[in-house]
This record gives sequence, C-alpha cells and structure tokens, in this order.
Amino acid sequence: MPAISATLELAQDLIRRPSVTPEDAGCQALLIERLTALGFTIESMPFEDVTNLWARRGSKGPVFCFAGHTDVVPSGPENQWTHPPFEPTLKDGYLWGRGAADMKGSIAAFITALERFIAENPDPKGSIALLITSDEEGPFINGTTRVIDTLEARNEKITWCIVGEPSSSNSVGDVIKNGRRGSISGNLTIKGVQGHVAYPHLVKNPIHLAAPALTELSQTLWDEGNDFFPPTSFQISNIHAGTGATNVVPGTLSVAFNFRFSTESTAESLQERVSEILSRHELDWHIDWSLSGHPFLTAAGDLVDAAHAAIQEVTGLETELSTAGGTSDGRFIAPTGAQVVELGPVNATIHKIDERVKAEDLDTLSSIYERILNKLLK
Amino acid sequence: MPAISATLELAQDLIRRPSVTPEDAGCQALLIERLTALGFTIESMPFEDVTNLWARRGSKGPVFCFAGHTDVVPSGPENQWTHPPFEPTLKDGYLWGRGAADMKGSIAAFITALERFIAENPDPKGSIALLITSDEEGPFINGTTRVIDTLEARNEKITWCIVGEPSSSNSVGDVIKNGRRGSISGNLTIKGVQGHVAYPHLVKNPIHLAAPALTELSQTLWDEGNDFFPPTSFQISNIHAGTGATNVVPGTLSVAFNFRFSTESTAESLQERVSEILSRHELDWHIDWSLSGHPFLTAAGDLVDAAHAAIQEVTGLETELSTAGGTSDGRFIAPTGAQVVELGPVNATIHKIDERVKAEDLDTLSSIYERILNKLLK
Ligand SMILES: [Zn+2]
Ligand SMILES: [Zn+2]
Repeated sequence: MPAISATLELAQDLIRRPSVTPEDAGCQALLIERLTALGFTIESMPFEDVTNLWARRGSKGPVFCFAGHTDVVPSGPENQWTHPPFEPTLKDGYLWGRGAADMKGSIAAFITALERFIAENPDPKGSIALLITSDEEGPFINGTTRVIDTLEARNEKITWCIVGEPSSSNSVGDVIKNGRRGSISGNLTIKGVQGHVAYPHLVKNPIHLAAPALTELSQTLWDEGNDFFPPTSFQISNIHAGTGATNVVPGTLSVAFNFRFSTESTAESLQERVSEILSRHELDWHIDWSLSGHPFLTAAGDLVDAAHAAIQEVTGLETELSTAGGTSDGRFIAPTGAQVVELGPVNATIHKIDERVKAEDLDTLSSIYERILNKLLK
Repeated sequence: MPAISATLELAQDLIRRPSVTPEDAGCQALLIERLTALGFTIESMPFEDVTNLWARRGSKGPVFCFAGHTDVVPSGPENQWTHPPFEPTLKDGYLWGRGAADMKGSIAAFITALERFIAENPDPKGSIALLITSDEEGPFINGTTRVIDTLEARNEKITWCIVGEPSSSNSVGDVIKNGRRGSISGNLTIKGVQGHVAYPHLVKNPIHLAAPALTELSQTLWDEGNDFFPPTSFQISNIHAGTGATNVVPGTLSVAFNFRFSTESTAESLQERVSEILSRHELDWHIDWSLSGHPFLTAAGDLVDAAHAAIQEVTGLETELSTAGGTSDGRFIAPTGAQVVELGPVNATIHKIDERVKAEDLDTLSSIYERILNKLLK
C-alpha cells in the first residue's frame, strides 16, 4: 500500500466524523489543532446548535479567508453505498465517503496548502483566516451569516474569500463561481368563495381566477441576464387547493414560488412586478415573501486573477467563470465588500449515494490553493 | 299538548332511527308494516351493506312510484344541535332532527297520503310502488341503481315517479325539479420533468405548462343551456403539485374537475373538447373520467301537469320547474323512460346542524301527494 498524501489523510479523518447538519462531530476540533500549530488565533462562535469557527493568523490587511463547512447532508440508505458513507475508502483512484466532495476534501486541501505556504512564508504580507460552519446544508440561520454579523459588528473585514464549494464540472479547476444568482421565495394565497360545484353562481373558484395570472407569471421575461448571469427565472414549486372532496370548489389556492435572479433585477423590482400582475388580474391575494440572498458578483480583480492563473499553472486549464447553480454561503460574505470566489472539486456526486472525488484531484486542489496564497500574500 | 298528525308521528318514528348511510336502522321495517297493511307486495333487495325496498300494489299499468331514501348524512357534532339530532322534537312550529327535511319527512307524508288514498280508492286504475334505499347519500352503487337494474331485467317499468327530495326553496311546493344536470368528473394528470429550481433549463414545470390550458378550460363557454337547463359549468375542485420542498420543481400536476352539464352537451362531447384543449396546448396529459349521471329531463306530461295542479290547489302557489342543484337518484330512474319529478319540503337546512322542517309543511306535502295520486290513478 503506497503512502497517501497529507491531504487525503486529513480528508479521511474528517469523513470518519459523521457530521450531519448541524453536527460538527469533532471536525472543527481537528482543524483547531492544526491551525493552532500554525499560529492561528482561534475563536469558537457557537450559535444555538451550530458550531462555528473563526481562525485568524496576523492582524494586518489584506485578509485572505477560506470559507467552508464541516457539516454534510444525510447519507441516505447506507446499504445503497458501495462503501460505507462514514468509512472513507480509497479505491479505484477515488476517495469515497459522504463529504468527500462537499466539502471535507476542500477543507483538507486548504489546510495542507496552508501548512506548506506558512512553512515557506512564516510572515506573509497580510492575514489569513478561516470561516468554518456546521450549518451550510441546513437552515443557514446560525452559521456563516452570524459569524459575518459578528465580524461586521467589530468592523473586521475580509479582502479575498475562497469558498471551498465543489465548483468544478468535469475536471478540478475547470469552473469557478464568481457570483451567484439571488434567491427570493413567495408563498402566495389567493382567496375565492368556497361552495358546491352544483351551484357555480355562488362560488368564486380561486383556481379559475388565478390561472390567467399564473400563466402570465410563468411566461414573463423578467430580464435577459447579462454577461455573468443567465436570465432571471421564476418557478412554481408547489400549488395546492381543495380538500379532496370532488364536489366542493375550494375557497383558497396556495402557490409557492421562487425566483433565481440576476443582477439585472432586484428583490424589490421582482416583488413589485409580481404584485402588479396579481392586482391587474383583480385577485384577492397575499404573499409572504422570504429573501434567501441577493445576487452577488466578483466580476474581476486580484482574486479572480489569482485563481485563474493558479489553475492555469497547475492544471493547464483555462477556467470558466460561472454564476450558475444553487446558492452558497458566499452570498453572506460578498455583501461585506469582499471579493468572493468558489473553487473546489468536481460536483458530480455531491448529496448523492456514493459521493466521491478523484483522489489525485484533492492534491491538485491543494496545489491550486497554495499557489493562490502565494500570488496574493507572498 | 295537541294531538299531532299521522304524518308527523311517522316522521318522528323514522327520525328516531339513526340511519346514517348505509344504515337503515329499522326504518324500512316500519314502512313494510304500513305497506303490508295496505296490500303491498314487499320485495327486499339488499345489496352488500345497503338495504333496499321495492313495494308494489297492483299488477296493471300505469305504475306510479314514490322513490326515496331512509339514510341520512351524519349529524356532525351533536352538541351543536339545539335539539339532539336523533331525538325528533316538535318545537316553535318546526320538526327538528336529522332527516326531517331530507327525507324522512317526505316518506312519512307519502305513506299517510297513500293510506288516505287507498282508503277511498281501494281499486285505483294502475299500480302504486315504492322504491326506497338506504344509500342515497353514499356512494350510490348498491342503492336505487341496482333496484332499477333488477326491474329492468324483468321489464318492470315505472310510468310516473315522484322522488321525495326536498325540492322546495322558500315554501313547500314552490319549486319542483323536473330534471337534473348531468355530472362527469375527471382526474387530470399533467407530466413534466422534476428538478431543482436553480437549474430551470433542466426542468419542465408541469404547473407552468398547464396554466394556459387551465385558463382556457375555466373560461370556455361549453354551451348556453336551454329553457330547462343553465349553461354547462366546469369547476376545478382540487389542484396539487409539489412535495412541500420549495426548491424542487415537481414532476407532476394533479387536477380534479367536474362538469355539471345541460342537455345541450353530452358526456362524450365534453370529453372530446377537454382532450382537444389539452392536446392543443401540447401537454403530456392523462385523464381518468368518471360519469356520475347523464342529464335527464321530464319537460312536460301527465306527471308535471298533476304535480303543478295539485300544488296550485293545495297551496295556491304557481310552482316553478327547475333543473338546478345537485344530482339525485332521479338520474337512475329517468333513463328507463319514466317521467320523473322531485317534490319535497324546503331544503334550507338539509345536511346541516339543526336540520328542520315546518311541521305544517309535512301535512301540506302529504295533501299534495294525495292529490297527485288522485289525479293520476283515480
Ligand atoms: Zn457545500
Ligand atoms: Zn336526499
């Protein structure tokens, strides 16, 4: 059996800890050990049942931060896994296990990159920090957002932030995310007048009344996107009316919808336009809105340049900038003014049975991270 | 305490028997006793858990039939009733109790009318029959429809049929139903492609796809009705899609709808037109249809004339012919070629807490029934 790299060693130690959201299961203790040895100042920031870590080395600017999460999504049925989800397995060139790609592999890759970088650069030109939470896959109420609130309250700023989310598509480094669409959801209620299907003149069927407005909402071009973002998209995820009785016209229709929106729209503009459509259709309506995140974009700058060059030098790949996909904790960090880029392993198996990552990709990723540190802080 | 009429006496005896569908609770036994005394031949026709009664007096035509049901809908919370639902109470000029209006009162009124009529006309010019079921308020599978099947199989025909359903609106006899709309329901499934809201290009949202077709279905003028029927009406009673997860576009939309249709449309024509609309909108759709009943109409004839005149003579009212409202067992009887009219007490409280009927209305109704018998069979 050949010796394995320090990155794979650490990744396995993390995967072995079954840290299903919001559990940390000792992962952060492991990181604290390594970071303390490197001279980091450790601040634990638990909020409710969430374990958060803010570690910083150095007091001067600029501040380079690695942001990540130790929690993982549930494994699903363990007997469907080729290898047990919480027993990391190196086999067929892959590291198998829940969190291998999302994102214990990235954390391990960054820790070893840091160890190599600090060994060679004990006094870099800025500070280095890590923001680690155990609540990225959960309700994201007591995780990154509260750490950022704490930092903001004392005016502690991040200059550059690499989020270790699995950004890569086919090959490690082929895609980095330099922004994310905004996300806003609404629970729409449309009221009618309930009654018996046999007495249509006495009812106001909220399904019938809403249908033209739902048609318009689903066919509206909200914006055309821009160089960095696809067009804003509207999707209804749930629609419900009726009690099951087939002879009763229901009094209320409930519709849950979500916008993923580009920087060409704002939460406010979308709210206004939806209101206008519903009111124009003369509906008796109400919406409970919930904003998950404004869109963010790090269009260009030192961080994008450094990541782009590091990937090119380590892998030979011309990386692609993307803002596609779901939300990430970057949405909480970017609004502070930080440049934010997500860079991590291939995301093909995340959240699935048999989550895995190419073993050599984690070493490649560690080299990319090290090179970014060199470019920004040497 | 004044003596009460034979009709009110019998109505109370029936209400006292808690015959919630499909229970008969001894109601029919009570009727059999009275009918046997009048010379009726009794045929019990139980099917599954439903008690049915076919009673006939005489073998020659024409055949006058009274159709009704001994079952009642559940009482709901008993403590919300002013008087206990199964303890008939004569108070404030009303007879209170579950079934007082729908339709133990009508049955009692007909039995006493019959007793008076036969006392005076022991040898009427045709036959008299009663078709009583304990499954009118239920799934109507083992009730009137199976009795009719049995009669049809032996070619036993009904000439005129009074259904004792509470047809009256404000005053007993003010409305009789000389037909009913047809009723056909559909369970529509529309298929899309499930996926994450963040990847709109990978999903086919069945709610979005269906909205224009649902708009068209809800706005279509199916027909304009005619002298006897209001326009055909389409109502969606239930619509469901989504698992509750707000970030998942569902793969399937389910829609339950119902047509109440006039004689200007047919079940087949409506099925065809719905299919055409869904296909034109290029949906991946499927419908499970279920036909509750074709429309029926007794536009004119001896029975309508007799009912009209009897009401006029007893109450002074000019009765109104109507086909509005829900379905009734008349839909099973009319297709045999019978003239069918529904005539019963005021329906304001049926199926509700505190169901009740004006005590004097049952005596009035009994007089009307007697007069109809006289007009048709004397
Ligand atoms: Zn993640
Ligand atoms: Zn009834």
